[in-house]
Amino acid sequence: MSQFVHEIVVGEKHEGSYTLELINMLGKGAQRVIVKAHGRNISKAVYVTESVRRLTGDKIGYGKIKIYSTEVGELKEEKSVPVIEIEVINLGVKPQS
Amino acid sequence: MSQFVHEIVVGEKHEGSYTLELINMLGKGAQRVIVKAHGRNISKAVYVTESVRRLTGDKIGYGKIKIYSTEVGELKEEKSVPVIEIEVINLGVKPQS
Repeated sequence: MSQFVHEIVVGEKHEGSYTLELINMLGKGAQRVIVKAHGRNISKAVYVTESVRRLTGDKIGYGKIKIYSTEVGELKEEKSVPVIEIEVINLGVKPQS
Repeated sequence: MSQFVHEIVVGEKHEGSYTLELINMLGKGAQRVIVKAHGRNISKAVYVTESVRRLTGDKIGYGKIKIYSTEVGELKEEKSVPVIEIEVINLGVKPQS
């Protein structure tokens, strides 16, 4: 068991890839995982955490959920992009065989 | 000023339409507005609340942010779809002229 805060950044890969990554982290004993996404990937992050909740039989809960913005792009051409950080709390996810 | 909880459901319309709706509600004195979205519209909801935060000069804050799933579709063909509910708190948005 680790008290270290793990992070998954949900990007362009398929949803299932992040779902598996999150289940594996929790199954290995991570107590908290921050699932983070920018812009159009925010919906995907929520699909991922809800899939993991269903697949593990409600063995995760939500901690703090943060919304804020960050600047991306070239100097003087920065664009503000929203970010979500979802704190996923391990309520007893079993190790995957 | 109203203590009633207002709700905006972010759907298929353009982001700007919901941004305007939210600014108007807050400008008219709504103390709290729940911004709700399903599935692929979740990202759009976060774009909307962050746009309103910027446009109003940080005159909104976030209250409780909830994530859960709901079943949609025909009987025996239901599909689970994630939902977000973002509680937006009015920190002094001025009425729009």
